[in-house]
Amino acid sequence: EVGDEFEPLDGEGVRKYVGKYSELSSRVGGDHPNEWTVREVGDGNINFVYIVEGPRGGIIVKQSLPYVRCVGDSWPLTLERSYFEVEALKEHGRICPEHVPEVYHENPTMAVISERYCEHPHIILRKGLIAGVVYPLLSEHMGEYLSRTLFFTSLFALSSGDHKKAVAKYCKNSEMCRLTEQVVFTEPYMNATNNRWTSPQLDEDALRLRKDRRLKLAVAELKSKFCERAQALIHGDLHTGSIMVTQTSTQVIDPEFAFYGPMGFDLGAYFGNLMLSYFSQDGHPSSPSSVGCPGGGEGREGFKAWLLQLISETWSLFSEKFRALWRLHATNGHVYNVAMFPTAREGGDDELSIAQEAFMQELLEDTLGFASAKMIRRIVGIAHVADFEEIHDPDVRAVCERRALNFAKSLLIRRKGISSMEEVVQDLKKAS
Amino acid sequence: EVGDEFEPLDGEGVRKYVGKYSELSSRVGGDHPNEWTVREVGDGNINFVYIVEGPRGGIIVKQSLPYVRCVGDSWPLTLERSYFEVEALKEHGRICPEHVPEVYHENPTMAVISERYCEHPHIILRKGLIAGVVYPLLSEHMGEYLSRTLFFTSLFALSSGDHKKAVAKYCKNSEMCRLTEQVVFTEPYMNATNNRWTSPQLDEDALRLRKDRRLKLAVAELKSKFCERAQALIHGDLHTGSIMVTQTSTQVIDPEFAFYGPMGFDLGAYFGNLMLSYFSQDGHPSSPSSVGCPGGGEGREGFKAWLLQLISETWSLFSEKFRALWRLHATNGHVYNVAMFPTAREGGDDELSIAQEAFMQELLEDTLGFASAKMIRRIVGIAHVADFEEIHDPDVRAVCERRALNFAKSLLIRRKGISSMEEVVQDLKKAS
Ligand SMILES: Nc1ncnc2c1ncn2[C@@H]1O[C@H](COP(=O)(O)OP(=O)(O)O)[C@@H](O)[C@H]1O
Ligand SMILES: Nc1ncnc2c1ncn2[C@@H]1O[C@H](COP(=O)(O)OP(=O)(O)O)[C@@H](O)[C@H]1O
Ligand SMILES: [Mg+2]
Ligand SMILES: [Mg+2]
Ligand SMILES: [Mg+2]
Ligand SMILES: [Mg+2]
Ligand SMILES: [Mg+2]
Repeated sequence: EVGDEFEPLDGEGVRKYVGKYSELSSRVGGDHPNEWTVREVGDGNINFVYIVEGPRGGIIVKQSLPYVRCVGDSWPLTLERSYFEVEALKEHGRICPEHVPEVYHENPTMAVISERYCEHPHIILRKGLIAGVVYPLLSEHMGEYLSRTLFFTSLFALSSGDHKKAVAKYCKNSEMCRLTEQVVFTEPYMNATNNRWTSPQLDEDALRLRKDRRLKLAVAELKSKFCERAQALIHGDLHTGSIMVTQTSTQVIDPEFAFYGPMGFDLGAYFGNLMLSYFSQDGHPSSPSSVGCPGGGEGREGFKAWLLQLISETWSLFSEKFRALWRLHATNGHVYNVAMFPTAREGGDDELSIAQEAFMQELLEDTLGFASAKMIRRIVGIAHVADFEEIHDPDVRAVCERRALNFAKSLLIRRKGISSMEEVVQDLKKAS
Repeated sequence: EVGDEFEPLDGEGVRKYVGKYSELSSRVGGDHPNEWTVREVGDGNINFVYIVEGPRGGIIVKQSLPYVRCVGDSWPLTLERSYFEVEALKEHGRICPEHVPEVYHENPTMAVISERYCEHPHIILRKGLIAGVVYPLLSEHMGEYLSRTLFFTSLFALSSGDHKKAVAKYCKNSEMCRLTEQVVFTEPYMNATNNRWTSPQLDEDALRLRKDRRLKLAVAELKSKFCERAQALIHGDLHTGSIMVTQTSTQVIDPEFAFYGPMGFDLGAYFGNLMLSYFSQDGHPSSPSSVGCPGGGEGREGFKAWLLQLISETWSLFSEKFRALWRLHATNGHVYNVAMFPTAREGGDDELSIAQEAFMQELLEDTLGFASAKMIRRIVGIAHVADFEEIHDPDVRAVCERRALNFAKSLLIRRKGISSMEEVVQDLKKAS
């Protein structure tokens, strides 16, 4: 019987599999599995993803194999990641259903998940940004997703006991954490065989990273925080390749790295990847495929201006929404509770605002730190981003990458002195 | 059969219980349980502790009841604390056998532990300090205990996977964590019925605490860190009442609050209680019962000087030992690994020293923060310390307590600007 023990599926296997589960086949519709089209669309590095379509609609079937897809079985990886992906999809989905695909089916033994197919014209955000497409609702949507998922899984909303229970559960996703620790916080700063970069152009830059002790110290601090600070249930891999978008919809997929970690890591992954997109723009054809950018500006320059606006708007929206949740729900929360920080006291003091300022400042520092680490690792580490990889002239690419790298290095060191995302945006403007 | 389900033991119950387990009765010796003396000695707030003595020797039998001993069954408390106490005793005992009593027997169902009896003339350190007894090896022993237990249970020594496994295990001790969160980080800053203080002398002082928003902000930050930062397996209740001493021996007992938390919490508990002892000295008879203090000084003044020396020496020894372990074992460690921070590079740079400086600075800040919080809660919260309680004149007591309280408040706010324990010692000298 399919599903009793692990078995890798090919296209025909997926067809049969879907046929066996009525909660799946009924969504695809039709009289017989042979009518369905099955396509493998996994452009990710790690797993296999199929779209199964029939008369009634399409569904996603994702299967994890016991190794890293793009490397093969020389790099084994636990099947349990599929369980954590589905648990995180469900938990984040409860909290923010508008921006997380619904789960239809889960099978931990087979490491199979089925979820809502983000139908045409959804595309991966990274691809949209490379093509220069503007998404007018993106900042609102991601502000909503980030504030809600991080707030409601943290001690702002949970009791101490429920928080510790959740922490313990996701501790078992440690193999995925270890992978992040290795490829984000360790290898880029060492002479590791996995590393690659645009060579010879960036040879000196890569070498200098390994000798920069202030930088390594900052990275070691961030690595400890990543390993030790169980602040919220984070997605764990929130780059622009984990987000599917249209002009009106934003869907966050692929939380297989989910665990209780620092909020700044999700925020940093997202903002860092927006910054990579920004630095890559000068390497792409001058006229973006999109309609004109709001707020004026033509072609790539206009698009870059929009990206900067996106970065600062997303932070503002995130931070406003997070603070609003805090004001509204703080009586349930275990930390920074309103009982200790009343909102309206005689004399007009607002202690809660002071607490919020201080918290947001520290979160911004974490965010900028993790954003920098994520940028650096995408330039000199094992896994690169299409934003740069699709710049075919290596000299042009290297110029863009070097700007991003230098910006990230400086941001990592300076992060504790920065007090607003606006300041970062001004620096980005100067840097490219 | 005793042990199949939970049953509270009285003295006779303990005698029978020990008689049933040969690993216990053989240590006590003799022909019949009736020959043994059984004494309840639990002067702690929470559990029952018996000494069973016979011809061959004595053993400790500790039983947890499903409530807080000093309050009664109106304050229920999980029996599972006994399991975590024994697990922590064994783990810390493996790492530092010289300063942790050997475990002879564990019975989670009955919430019974049996461990080495710290025989006469061992006394509780707090009592020794109240009596003005000098312990010449204490700084060396506690430096050793703190450095080893914190280092070897952290990511300096563990792999990421083993660390997460251990974190998950101790997450289940969450009821004890919640108790700490309540009585250390919350109630002292609110109008809570559990609170008490020397009244009316300290009424104003207690009120001011609740209105001091900088202070509450600092405490909220520490509370978050306590809940979120799984840095090492900490004892969780390391005050001077959890340490038994003689002139040559130091034994750390009672880790029922153990969990993965910030290293600074154990350090802070210990240093904070030494500081409480310091501030209480002026309220005690002028001539300590001990022999003269090394380094000159007579009576209580000489003893205060020794306490200050103890504080600064313990930090130095802890910090030296911790750094030495780091240099020695860093190739196994997951964070701040020597591969990223080589110790001996051409050119004479020592990157590891730089990393160690930065780490120790942050740990000192945490330590001083938690020390302050621990001091404050012992003056205005639910549980007070004998150091002050045994000062019978309330006016005299209030003067001592106020000095301690003001010092703690100032230290809590200033902690991030302090760069050595020596600096704190100089401030202590001025403050009392
Ligand atoms: N719910 C979905 N709707 C539409 N396409 C999806 C969906 N989930 C995944 N995909 C497609 O499959 C690709 C790989 O999926 P992903 O979950 O990111 O796999 P991996 O874990 O291997 O990175 C995505 O980039 C996207 O193109
Ligand atoms: N191993 C031991 N050797 C000698 N006396 C002990 C030992 N353990 C506990 N005691 C005595 O019992 C008292 C209470 O023990 P403790 O473990 O601190 O209990 P509680 O958890 O209630 O605070 C201690 O203060 C000490 O006097
Ligand atoms: Mg993916
Ligand atoms: Mg993935
Ligand atoms: Mg005790
Ligand atoms: Mg105890
Ligand atoms: Mg600082």
